[in-house]
Amino acid sequence: MSVRKEFVESLLAGERLIIARAISMVENEHPDALSLLRLLYSSTGNGYRIGITGPPGAGKSTITNKLAKLYRTENKRVGIIAVDPTSPFTGGALLGDRVRMTDVELDEGVFIRSMASRGSLGGLSKKAKEAADILDASGCDIILMETVGVGQSELDIARATDTTIVVLVPESGDSIQAMKAGLMEIADFFVVNKSDRAGADQAVLSINMVLNFKPKRDGWRPTVLQSVANDGKGIDVIAQKINEHRIYLNDQNILDKKRDERVIEQIRELVGEKLRIEFWNEERKRLLQSKLYEINTHNLTPYDVADELLENYKE
Amino acid sequence: MSVRKEFVESLLAGERLIIARAISMVENEHPDALSLLRLLYSSTGNGYRIGITGPPGAGKSTITNKLAKLYRTENKRVGIIAVDPTSPFTGGALLGDRVRMTDVELDEGVFIRSMASRGSLGGLSKKAKEAADILDASGCDIILMETVGVGQSELDIARATDTTIVVLVPESGDSIQAMKAGLMEIADFFVVNKSDRAGADQAVLSINMVLNFKPKRDGWRPTVLQSVANDGKGIDVIAQKINEHRIYLNDQNILDKKRDERVIEQIRELVGEKLRIEFWNEERKRLLQSKLYEINTHNLTPYDVADELLENYKE
Repeated sequence: MSVRKEFVESLLAGERLIIARAISMVENEHPDALSLLRLLYSSTGNGYRIGITGPPGAGKSTITNKLAKLYRTENKRVGIIAVDPTSPFTGGALLGDRVRMTDVELDEGVFIRSMASRGSLGGLSKKAKEAADILDASGCDIILMETVGVGQSELDIARATDTTIVVLVPESGDSIQAMKAGLMEIADFFVVNKSDRAGADQAVLSINMVLNFKPKRDGWRPTVLQSVANDGKGIDVIAQKINEHRIYLNDQNILDKKRDERVIEQIRELVGEKLRIEFWNEERKRLLQSKLYEINTHNLTPYDVADELLENYKE
Repeated sequence: MSVRKEFVESLLAGERLIIARAISMVENEHPDALSLLRLLYSSTGNGYRIGITGPPGAGKSTITNKLAKLYRTENKRVGIIAVDPTSPFTGGALLGDRVRMTDVELDEGVFIRSMASRGSLGGLSKKAKEAADILDASGCDIILMETVGVGQSELDIARATDTTIVVLVPESGDSIQAMKAGLMEIADFFVVNKSDRAGADQAVLSINMVLNFKPKRDGWRPTVLQSVANDGKGIDVIAQKINEHRIYLNDQNILDKKRDERVIEQIRELVGEKLRIEFWNEERKRLLQSKLYEINTHNLTPYDVADELLENYKE
């Protein structure tokens, strides 16, 4: 382990450059990343994690931006992680989002990071959660995690936040696609943004209608808010609802339960990764390669080869 | 192992009811599913797998439907798997797709199956691939795999097909979201559907412009086609392009390489799953639970507990 003490201390003190480097370590799977996270762990747990998700173009970045500004007026330190799981190949085309966030980016009390899984598929949600731990340890009171759409990564991230907001636009409301999107189940509340456009009230009605058919989770009934984030309208109500949800989670002891589940998930991931790395040593990689011909000629099945590899591992 | 011989024989003979039951076995993780897949393996490899992906509303189901019809005129047996990874919670709201496919559904030579991951997150792409193996073994010459959007599941499925078509609409063309979507990298070719709407030519131009900046994969340069699938326009050209790509893959020996990669991936998944099941026995689940308090009070980190569990496993 070669994480220097001063590095950790600077991070805990909230030095921006060090935070950025620490997140890069996680992103690039630096050999010391795990040691660092281990050292930081006891300093985590104070940052409240808020997920902001929804389809492209719904205004998530704007809402994230304005929420950050609002929290700044309360003198809270804010971390923002913009996760772009839909660009595993393009290497993060978050230029648009970054431009829109420029004004909060100049604020010393806000730390913004975009994350995309460059090339290496999967693992993005894990890295985003680790980045949140780093921001948490660095003293962020609020951690905003923005994700696009609803794929596996978004669901993973939603499960890693304390409150999840789903942002839609008036046009999404009556569309079956929004219902299909699984958004219904991860939302602690909905925001119909751009609600100065036609159909906003109808959208609220439609979402509420679907919600009426859903069992409440943890006894909490998601509500549907409206906003025009570009004009700053509705942001205070969103922040108020986040706070209401936070108080509810605390009062009902749900926050601890959620965080326990998060820890279990994290340990399962850590174990899975270590097992995988240990299993796929050079010998077993070679063994697998040597069997491909027999599989192609149908003298062996992939199931046989998996069994043989597992036998080899157990010896 | 208790898969009956007659069951396998009926499946290989293409009996629809048996195919449906076999896919259900895979979907529900029936204890005999693995034995069945193992028995079927030597009969797979003849079905050509075509992935059809793109954003919601682009017309993927219609194109899938019309392609199936076209292949039927060539007397080919067709399997269709409609994967809906965006509804892990809603339990598959594929009603819309199913309605649109009714006309091919009446054809004895077409087998259609919708798959969604009901509750159990993840594993959907694995199950879809296994369903494709079943259809393959049952004698389908063509297997169409339709997926929505581009999340991790879609990428996994794209990697499991021989040819991947990305369907867009004129409006997607100039939007940066489409470029961000990773669709660029999985497409063997593009279809701008609904190209009777304004902006179709512009969309083709825009996509081509992006493609010009991308390195070719396997020496193949994706092209951009147009269609109006509702009117059946362009379907023949799509089928022709699929065939062209198939011949290219064959001539360049890329198909074998692709299928080798698929087998490697499958074996890695099988191994991972077996390791995971073996690892998380009751003892280690209890051990993990017993450590949560110490983690919450910051006397232990999740990293320590992961290490301890791995130690326990190795003993």
